[in-house]
Amino acid sequence: MAEQPVTAGLLVIGNEILSGRTQDANIAHLGHRLNEIGVRLLEVRVVPDIEAEIVDAVNALRARFDYVFTTGGIGPTHDDITAASIAKAFDVPLIQNPEARARLEGNYRSGDLNEARLRMANTPEGASLIDNPVSAAPGFQMGNVFVMAGIPVIMQAMFESVVHRLVGGKPLVSRTLTVSVPEGKIAAGFGALQATYPDVEMGSYPFSRDGRFATRLVLRASDEDRLAAAAAELDAMIVELGSTGTWDRTE
Amino acid sequence: MAEQPVTAGLLVIGNEILSGRTQDANIAHLGHRLNEIGVRLLEVRVVPDIEAEIVDAVNALRARFDYVFTTGGIGPTHDDITAASIAKAFDVPLIQNPEARARLEGNYRSGDLNEARLRMANTPEGASLIDNPVSAAPGFQMGNVFVMAGIPVIMQAMFESVVHRLVGGKPLVSRTLTVSVPEGKIAAGFGALQATYPDVEMGSYPFSRDGRFATRLVLRASDEDRLAAAAAELDAMIVELGSTGTWDRTE
Repeated sequence: MAEQPVTAGLLVIGNEILSGRTQDANIAHLGHRLNEIGVRLLEVRVVPDIEAEIVDAVNALRARFDYVFTTGGIGPTHDDITAASIAKAFDVPLIQNPEARARLEGNYRSGDLNEARLRMANTPEGASLIDNPVSAAPGFQMGNVFVMAGIPVIMQAMFESVVHRLVGGKPLVSRTLTVSVPEGKIAAGFGALQATYPDVEMGSYPFSRDGRFATRLVLRASDEDRLAAAAAELDAMIVELGSTGTWDRTE
Repeated sequence: MAEQPVTAGLLVIGNEILSGRTQDANIAHLGHRLNEIGVRLLEVRVVPDIEAEIVDAVNALRARFDYVFTTGGIGPTHDDITAASIAKAFDVPLIQNPEARARLEGNYRSGDLNEARLRMANTPEGASLIDNPVSAAPGFQMGNVFVMAGIPVIMQAMFESVVHRLVGGKPLVSRTLTVSVPEGKIAAGFGALQATYPDVEMGSYPFSRDGRFATRLVLRASDEDRLAAAAAELDAMIVELGSTGTWDRTE
């Protein structure tokens, strides 16, 4: 377990996310899973299927964060340019990876493994493969960059097959208090509580329920005792406002 | 209508998106609506509630794109730091906007408009307001940057109230062909078709249906005739592969 906060960036590659045709599901899933293993997702970028954009974004993210994950663009069609772009970002050749080819050969009948599908065996030179238990065609790891599929079920399976390679920090634990009070009434006291507990991250998220505004107050910390102390003070504050809330330990 | 492609970037501000606690709905909505008015969303960034991150991201995006939209961080609580961050990005003072204050005064009973809620009247000096038909507290426009709420229903209402300020290009029209063929079988022909029609953007999106892989082939262009010609060739190609597909004109 690392002493320093361990950080990650995510690069979502795909025109279909930017055009609104596809609702992304990978950001929330990865954010949640990384959090569970003590890695903080600190930035996401979504870029189109344009090599220069992918190269710039992956180079910016891999310099700043301990880990970078990418999703999308590793299929067999002409718009799948992630592997070539990552090779360019690392300034290494794109090669046909023999192990990746062997996995594709094991998955397709010989006549079906055409030239397009063989593109899925291409990786930057020096990459290690990421298992794809769903549809064989592997992802790959290059340095601190983990390249995964965009289809959520495959991305999730790939992530679980590499999670053992990640070294996390102390996971944050969190508690959420849902109150039927608009956040404007809580804001002053909640801000004062944040000032008292700088080591507990406090967020306020308004939402509407049955046509009335309500608020979720989220406390996150790596120290359970500090979290409990802050939660007790928050509880007392809500009672003082003449209300009560519902605690939920899970996010 | 502009002759050049009109471009946009989106900055999603909020720890709750990065932690996976909240599933973002604003990226897909804005991508879709911008597309309809001929503005192409070309990059999205998601950053935490940290001033330096917001400042850097908004300055990077506003230099590159015609329009920048931000969502999140304009409420009354201590973690709402978007207005102050935008002021810093533009190097102007953060002021209490008299018109924004008047709108809040019209919305709250006098005792309810406390100091925390008055924070929602703060804008960078020189900003123009964006109407909030849902809950009064306005967004604002500063230069080419449009600052909106994070709650989807409010963000959507704010966007509709500023859409008349945007000058779009020629909208892309699109057609989607769904085929019960894995994309690896279509890839070669589809890539050749893309090469023949460089002015028609072609994307291939595999998905699984009843446990089998199927593919959506999306064609997008600003010229309806070229789109129709490419679609006819794609149709013929699918028939040649011994299959048929279903066309859908909407995304």
